[in-house]
Amino acid sequence: MKIGFIGLGKMGHAMASNLLKAGHEVTVYNRSPGKAEDLAARGARIARSVAEACRGEAVMTMLADDRAAEQVVFGEGGIVAALGKSAIHVSSSTISVALSDRLTEAHAKAGQRFVSAPVFGRPDAAAAGKLFVAAAGTEDALKDCLPLLEAIGQRTVVLSKVPSAANLVKLSGNFLAASVIESPGEAMALVGKGGIDRHAYLELLTSTMFPAPMYKIYGELIVEGKFEPAAFAAPLGHKDIRLTLAAAEDLRVPMPVASLLRDRFLTLFANGGENLDWSAIGGLAARDAGEVRS
Amino acid sequence: MKIGFIGLGKMGHAMASNLLKAGHEVTVYNRSPGKAEDLAARGARIARSVAEACRGEAVMTMLADDRAAEQVVFGEGGIVAALGKSAIHVSSSTISVALSDRLTEAHAKAGQRFVSAPVFGRPDAAAAGKLFVAAAGTEDALKDCLPLLEAIGQRTVVLSKVPSAANLVKLSGNFLAASVIESPGEAMALVGKGGIDRHAYLELLTSTMFPAPMYKIYGELIVEGKFEPAAFAAPLGHKDIRLTLAAAEDLRVPMPVASLLRDRFLTLFANGGENLDWSAIGGLAARDAGEVRS
Amino acid sequence: MKIGFIGLGKMGHAMASNLLKAGHEVTVYNRSPGKAEDLAARGARIARSVAEACRGEAVMTMLADDRAAEQVVFGEGGIVAALGKSAIHVSSSTISVALSDRLTEAHAKAGQRFVSAPVFGRPDAAAAGKLFVAAAGTEDALKDCLPLLEAIGQRTVVLSKVPSAANLVKLSGNFLAASVIESPGEAMALVGKGGIDRHAYLELLTSTMFPAPMYKIYGELIVEGKFEPAAFAAPLGHKDIRLTLAAAEDLRVPMPVASLLRDRFLTLFANGGENLDWSAIGGLAARDAGEVRS
Amino acid sequence: MKIGFIGLGKMGHAMASNLLKAGHEVTVYNRSPGKAEDLAARGARIARSVAEACRGEAVMTMLADDRAAEQVVFGEGGIVAALGKSAIHVSSSTISVALSDRLTEAHAKAGQRFVSAPVFGRPDAAAAGKLFVAAAGTEDALKDCLPLLEAIGQRTVVLSKVPSAANLVKLSGNFLAASVIESPGEAMALVGKGGIDRHAYLELLTSTMFPAPMYKIYGELIVEGKFEPAAFAAPLGHKDIRLTLAAAEDLRVPMPVASLLRDRFLTLFANGGENLDWSAIGGLAARDAGEVRS
Repeated sequence: MKIGFIGLGKMGHAMASNLLKAGHEVTVYNRSPGKAEDLAARGARIARSVAEACRGEAVMTMLADDRAAEQVVFGEGGIVAALGKSAIHVSSSTISVALSDRLTEAHAKAGQRFVSAPVFGRPDAAAAGKLFVAAAGTEDALKDCLPLLEAIGQRTVVLSKVPSAANLVKLSGNFLAASVIESPGEAMALVGKGGIDRHAYLELLTSTMFPAPMYKIYGELIVEGKFEPAAFAAPLGHKDIRLTLAAAEDLRVPMPVASLLRDRFLTLFANGGENLDWSAIGGLAARDAGEVRS
Repeated sequence: MKIGFIGLGKMGHAMASNLLKAGHEVTVYNRSPGKAEDLAARGARIARSVAEACRGEAVMTMLADDRAAEQVVFGEGGIVAALGKSAIHVSSSTISVALSDRLTEAHAKAGQRFVSAPVFGRPDAAAAGKLFVAAAGTEDALKDCLPLLEAIGQRTVVLSKVPSAANLVKLSGNFLAASVIESPGEAMALVGKGGIDRHAYLELLTSTMFPAPMYKIYGELIVEGKFEPAAFAAPLGHKDIRLTLAAAEDLRVPMPVASLLRDRFLTLFANGGENLDWSAIGGLAARDAGEVRS
Repeated sequence: MKIGFIGLGKMGHAMASNLLKAGHEVTVYNRSPGKAEDLAARGARIARSVAEACRGEAVMTMLADDRAAEQVVFGEGGIVAALGKSAIHVSSSTISVALSDRLTEAHAKAGQRFVSAPVFGRPDAAAAGKLFVAAAGTEDALKDCLPLLEAIGQRTVVLSKVPSAANLVKLSGNFLAASVIESPGEAMALVGKGGIDRHAYLELLTSTMFPAPMYKIYGELIVEGKFEPAAFAAPLGHKDIRLTLAAAEDLRVPMPVASLLRDRFLTLFANGGENLDWSAIGGLAARDAGEVRS
Repeated sequence: MKIGFIGLGKMGHAMASNLLKAGHEVTVYNRSPGKAEDLAARGARIARSVAEACRGEAVMTMLADDRAAEQVVFGEGGIVAALGKSAIHVSSSTISVALSDRLTEAHAKAGQRFVSAPVFGRPDAAAAGKLFVAAAGTEDALKDCLPLLEAIGQRTVVLSKVPSAANLVKLSGNFLAASVIESPGEAMALVGKGGIDRHAYLELLTSTMFPAPMYKIYGELIVEGKFEPAAFAAPLGHKDIRLTLAAAEDLRVPMPVASLLRDRFLTLFANGGENLDWSAIGGLAARDAGEVRS
């Protein structure tokens, strides 16, 4: 397909790269230039504006947050203004449910189609084309952009005709992931202060009752206290919990663990942890328990 | 080995059965009789008292709580009084760290050996001999009772020379398991109220980021709202969280998620849920969110 | 002084009434008409637009929330557009810190002055002119509008030159007030289930260690379970906690009690309590404890 | 009356002193001697054993915790063994509901009477005879010991015929007091980080909506960060929250603020605060918010 790709952060860059590898004709755009050069070397066309990236059958976006998405979509020369009739905007950004609903409406008004397709997976999974894609949108739109989704992930799950359903699922998934940082963080603060070797403990957990990779990945980061460099930066994790709580507020769903996670992020930031990986909140229970890391 | 086995609840019965299957000479005892008959048919000797079950090289106990364990161990004709010199008491019950320390001391004084070997797994895993055993005790004691541990589980992990370390690990593991009820319970309350099919949601989660069986097992119970019959009764789950918090209090480790879980159990019990499976706490977020199940 | 007054809800109506009583020349405006008639009978002039209320030395606003305030201030023919040079906008609405900062900037740009003067007290205190006023703004602006503040309250406390400081204080005060609902709610759930007469209990508390009127007022509402009619509607209370948490998020201050209060409001709304007084969250601990009110 | 008084800590010493002042014939006992000397100078008789203090019409106890009370009451030569038929044990200690029930039963069996009369107030109130007494017990016993209660307090409130009701009320009262540390602690962390002068803020609160002395006392300690010397030591506050939670657990009442307070105490202790006043937990929100006190 002839498509545009906007947003070349760690995740977006890897996704665009896989779209090229799958044979698509990709025009890439990034606000700060320079990130697109190696993609150009592999055949990508570099757009000098958002509008230039909107001349194909579809445009995918992978942006940091609501604000970035709003600018790219609604700004002057933005996607709504530039994208052709019936063309598809595939949004993989982790944005709010509310913004997703606004995008659905705006694209419909402009005669365009909107698919929400946020992804699960860290940058290494993105690079390997092993993301999981949670997709929602009208049947025809989903069908037409399926080749794109298949190029970036190992599996696409279709959730609903309402695009924002995919965003709600994505946010709730990140909430669950964050709780796989918090709870083991508390457990390790406990057994560690109880004199048990944390490596052995983690090995026991992950080889028995908790074989999910996430327990292993985050568990090791917590055991080592190694939160730099950030694979998924804490402010992004905080944003996702904030958006989860915003959706929960609109739907009137109290989520006490999500509230706790929000407080953990605020504590982390207030104590100098803005640049750490989000798993750093898993070290706060030990901090409360008086542990001092050198 | 020639051993005794005390405590024939769902778990204990299955464990004793596997000990027989492995060729051990087992004398079984249960406070309320009747539970031992089918074991007798398969070669077990039935003891009429705790003391009668203490005449072998080792005695294993699988009891409901601290109170039951204290009675069996310290009561008249109890294990401390009846067990031979150098014989081993293998305690698989989920008891408090504090009681485990008391047992260690009492058995040492009596010239006996004590191994703490709590197990991970639900009754079906116990029946299949697929439990995970977290063991702690002196090297020689562990070595001598290894054939027993191997008969009941698929894997034994040795944690420490201090028996109570195994209890702390077991409690923290149950805390982690309970948090795999709470967090998905909140997430499902959210996406369910957001109009997303919960079965599809669970399928997405467990086939992607959360492949651990525990997510599947508890997730399905929560989606179905099917908390009877209880595989692991809520009061037992509550007890484990209570003991986790007691250990955390002694060690001065604040564990906010554990505090939340405790409140969830109290809410469940106060609203008529004493007989449900412990996964029923996973339905309370939806109840707070106003969901009414028929 | 010659002033305008915009927003004639329960609180605003009482405040405008006291401004008239103090001899000020008041032009009142309310979006939905009809609320101003009795004020007209007492000498108020009725404006047919926001702009008409902006022709004096100052205009006071007492509006429901950020959205209402934004419309009145920034809308076409709004305060920024209509108010004269050097005239003062005195905002008594409980709005966000962020909006207060925006108002400060916008009025400065327009050559106007802005004073933030949120008030503490329920409608009966407003009617009696017994409000407490938390004021912030430049020294000259505060001095010039002091006669207005004195007319509506029994005491004015000046907090800062930065107007939004008064909003932060107001929000934090409402957070404290809400916590005087939650904590006694928990305590009463406890002693009530323990068989103690709640009236006697409340009388003991308020006549000894907790003589503040707030304990008496909210305590009685909780003891009686009498949450209608609403003196301060739950959605307004929820809004204040939401704005407190928003300010706390911007400042990176984790506030676990505020998070709990937010969840309480969501639970209340999800279970049909949108029209109740905000003290109704004080009944939720008893609900969790299984209490059924007829 | 001819009475004994056991337990001469800060509170007990002041209470015994007021009993003497009121003309009672008091025999005092304290485990560690030396604390009674100045009382002897004012007419007290010094007992060399618990039993010696049990020869009058009544014996009052003011002890640190359950363990101390159990020893004094049930130990060899303890109150149950030594007190005469129909004589009254007036327990003012803050002990558990469960122990209070055990004491009631044990004294009844021994033909003695038991009154539970815990007190509200800090040492200075005790010294001034200005305590509030929450009393429960049989009508006749209460009547007979009223002169004692009147000597130590400014007011006695009779709560129930069941002595432990007074303990439940006392514990819940201390829970409420602790929440008057936590919530203002959070509010001050917020406004302080927002640049507002905390002294001015506290002055505003306590002179308007929160005129209760408790807000002033704890508020000032938090503003000053002055948690030494301890007027009411943190471990005692922790004990009370622990006993509140224990009673709540038995009654199946979830109390999330109490759970939070428990975690605050554990955090305080884990970070070196065992010797501080219990108001030190009010500084933890600011610590989480990154504030560093010199």
